[in-house]
Amino acid sequence: MRSDLDGLMERRGLDAFLVFGDEGENPVLYYLTNGAHITKGYALKRRGGDLLLVVNAMEIEEAAKSGLKVISEFDLGYAQLLQAAEGDQLAAAAQLVARMLARIGLEGGKVGVYGRGAINYFVQLHGALSANLPAYTFVGESGVTLFDEAAITKDAEELARLRSVSARTSEVLRETWDFIAGHRLQGDLVVNDQGEPLTIGAVKRFVRRALFDRDLEDTDMIFAQGRDGGFPHSRGEAAQPLRAGQAVVFDLFPRELGGGYHHDCTRTWSIGYAAPEVQEAYNQVMDAFEIAIDSFRVNMPTRALQEAVQSYFEAHGYPTSRSHPGTTVGYMHSLGHGVGINIHERPSLSHLSNDIFAPGSVISIEPGLYYPERGFGVRIEDLVYVGGDGQLITLTDFHKELVLPLKG
Amino acid sequence: MRSDLDGLMERRGLDAFLVFGDEGENPVLYYLTNGAHITKGYALKRRGGDLLLVVNAMEIEEAAKSGLKVISEFDLGYAQLLQAAEGDQLAAAAQLVARMLARIGLEGGKVGVYGRGAINYFVQLHGALSANLPAYTFVGESGVTLFDEAAITKDAEELARLRSVSARTSEVLRETWDFIAGHRLQGDLVVNDQGEPLTIGAVKRFVRRALFDRDLEDTDMIFAQGRDGGFPHSRGEAAQPLRAGQAVVFDLFPRELGGGYHHDCTRTWSIGYAAPEVQEAYNQVMDAFEIAIDSFRVNMPTRALQEAVQSYFEAHGYPTSRSHPGTTVGYMHSLGHGVGINIHERPSLSHLSNDIFAPGSVISIEPGLYYPERGFGVRIEDLVYVGGDGQLITLTDFHKELVLPLKG
Repeated sequence: MRSDLDGLMERRGLDAFLVFGDEGENPVLYYLTNGAHITKGYALKRRGGDLLLVVNAMEIEEAAKSGLKVISEFDLGYAQLLQAAEGDQLAAAAQLVARMLARIGLEGGKVGVYGRGAINYFVQLHGALSANLPAYTFVGESGVTLFDEAAITKDAEELARLRSVSARTSEVLRETWDFIAGHRLQGDLVVNDQGEPLTIGAVKRFVRRALFDRDLEDTDMIFAQGRDGGFPHSRGEAAQPLRAGQAVVFDLFPRELGGGYHHDCTRTWSIGYAAPEVQEAYNQVMDAFEIAIDSFRVNMPTRALQEAVQSYFEAHGYPTSRSHPGTTVGYMHSLGHGVGINIHERPSLSHLSNDIFAPGSVISIEPGLYYPERGFGVRIEDLVYVGGDGQLITLTDFHKELVLPLKG
Repeated sequence: MRSDLDGLMERRGLDAFLVFGDEGENPVLYYLTNGAHITKGYALKRRGGDLLLVVNAMEIEEAAKSGLKVISEFDLGYAQLLQAAEGDQLAAAAQLVARMLARIGLEGGKVGVYGRGAINYFVQLHGALSANLPAYTFVGESGVTLFDEAAITKDAEELARLRSVSARTSEVLRETWDFIAGHRLQGDLVVNDQGEPLTIGAVKRFVRRALFDRDLEDTDMIFAQGRDGGFPHSRGEAAQPLRAGQAVVFDLFPRELGGGYHHDCTRTWSIGYAAPEVQEAYNQVMDAFEIAIDSFRVNMPTRALQEAVQSYFEAHGYPTSRSHPGTTVGYMHSLGHGVGINIHERPSLSHLSNDIFAPGSVISIEPGLYYPERGFGVRIEDLVYVGGDGQLITLTDFHKELVLPLKG
C-alpha cells in the first residue's frame, strides 16, 4: 500500500525516490497523486518524509487537488537554470533535480528513479544526473520494483474502486450477452430483425457504449471468433459477421474513464450451439479454472497454482509453456496477474514466478486452450480478491455458460 | 515523414535504431507499426534496411497487421537466454537485443534507443546493454529527436486522418454550443426546461458522448468557468453550475478512438452576455490570433510568430513570459505546438524555440490572456496545416463568437 512506502524504500536502501512525470500515461504518478490531472511533473519523497509534487506553474491548481505539497519549477528557479545552462536542457534538468532534492532536505545519498517516459531522454538524463550531481547515486530498478510491491496490496479506497469497476463491467457482460441473444440465425449468420448480419465491429461498438454509459473506457478489448480466438491476443476482425457454432473469446479489461483502476475478465461464448471439440476443450478449461480456485491458499507461491493447472492440461495431453516452451498451441500463457492502475501488475502467475498470493491483492485467474488450426480458442477469466482473512473473493459477477442461445 | 528515417538516422550518425515497446502508450511504436495492437514489442531498423518487429509469440497475429516483417522473441531463443541468465533478466534482455541487431545484420556500431517505458527499468537496461554488448554504443537523444523530426512533416495518410479528426471535432464544438444554447436562465443560473441547473460535469458528459458517437475519445478536456479559466490547465469543476456572464475556456483535444491522431482547439464562451473586461480581453486575444495568422510565412522561425504576439500583448500592458518570466497572469504560455499522434509535438512555438514552420506540419495557434483574480481567462485556438505550397490552411471549422446566447 501507499502507506508502506517508507519500509519498501528502507529495504532497498533508498534515501529518496524521484518519479519523473513525463507527458502521457504514468501509472506511478497517478498512484502517488491520486490521479491528479497534471500534464507533466515530478513526485519525490525522502524516506520518512512527505511527498512533494513539482509542476509547471500552469499545473499548480490541478496538482493541488492531489492533497500533496506542491511547488512550481519556477519557484525553484528553473527559468534561470535554463538561461545559465545556455540551452543545455539536460544540465538544467539536473540542476533542477538537485534543487528538488535539497527542498526535501536531501543533500546526498541513494535516489531511486521511477516513472514512465521517453527512453531516449531519460537514459541521457540519468547520465547527466550522475555526471552533474556526484553527491547522489541515481539508481533504477527491475524485477519487482518499489511501486510494484506497494501496489500488490490494495488499500480500502483502491478496493472500493476495483469493486465498483468490477460490478459495472459485469453488467456490461450481461448486457452484451442479452444484445447478441436478441438476434436470430439466417443460415449460419447471426442477423437482427431486419436480417442484417451482426458484425464483431457492431458488438464492440455496443460494448464500448455500455462501458461509456457507466463511466468506464475500453482499453482495446478482445472479441475474437473461431480461428482468431486461437491466438490469445488477437483482437478480432471488426468486419467479420458472427456465425453459429463459432466460439468467441471475449476478453474485456476496461478502466475508469480518463485512466484509473481496471477490471479484467474473459468469457468464451459459442453462438447458438457448440461443436463437440469446443465443448470438450471448454469443459477442461472449466476444470482447470476450478482446480486453480480450489488449490488456492493465501501466501502460497503463485507458481504452485500455475503448475497445478499445467499438470492438469499436460495429463490430458495438451502442450503447455512448461512442457513445450514456446508452444503456440495448448496452454501457453501464465495463469494470471495482478490488476490495479495497471492492467498487468504483480503478482505474476507464471511457473517461473517467485511471487506469492498476499492478502489484499487483486488477481486475474485465466486458464485457456488454443487451437487456431482447428478453428478455436477457449479462455475463462475472473478477477479475484484475496481477503485479509485469506479467503478468495470473486469480483467478476457473470455466469460461465458456453452456449449463447439466439432468438427462435 | 516515415520515409525520411534513413536520412534522419544518417544525420545523427546512427547505424540503427531500437524502439522499446513497453506496455502502455507508446507513440513512436504506434508511428512505426501503423497502430498495430501489440501489448509489448521491439521495432528496430538498420540504416538503409527494413523495419523489423519483434514481439511475444502471442502477439504475432496482431503485429503482422502492421505490414512489417515480424518475428517472435521465442524465434530468437529468448526462453533459452532466460534460462542461461539464471534469472538475470537484464542480462537476458541484453542478449536478446544482440540477437535482434544481428538479425538486421548489425554486428556493431551506434544504436539509438527510443520508445516509452518504465524509467527505472530502462536506465538499468541501458547499463546492461553497454556492459554486455561492447561492440555497440547505445545512445539516447534529447531536444528534437529523430522521431520528433520525422513527425513534423505529415504524409498524405496522416493528413487525411488529421483532417477527419478535425472535421469531427468541429461538429462536436457545434453540437456543444447548440446544447448549451438550448438552456435558459433562472436568475444567473443556466437551467434546462425542468429548471435543473446545467453543470460542467453534465456538459463534459455531453461532449464525451458526442465524441464517442464519432469514434473519437476525450483525453481530459478543459471546460473551466470564471476564475478556473484563468489557470491555463485547470480542467474545471464538474459540480459547478454554468452561470450567466461567466467566461468558459473550452479546450478540446480528442484523438481517434483507441489512440491515434489528435485535434486541438479552444473556444472561449461567455454565457448569455459578456462582462466588459472579458469582451476587451477577448478582442485583444482575437487581434493577437489574427496577427499570428497574418504574420505567418512558411519556413520562418516559429519564435517570430510568438514574439509578434508577445509584442502586441506587451504593447497593451500585459505581462508575457518574455517580459516577465514565470508570470502567472497575462500571456504566459507558448503560441502553440505541433499536433499528431502526440498532442504536443514539434515544432514548439515558444520564444525560446529554434524550430521553423515546415511545409506539411500541423500546428496549434493558441494565444490567451489569464486573470484568475479578476475571475476570467480567455484563449482561442485553431489547428492549422502548412500546405506544400506554403499556405496556411485552418483545420478547425467553427466560429469564434464570444457570447453564447441562451433561450428566451
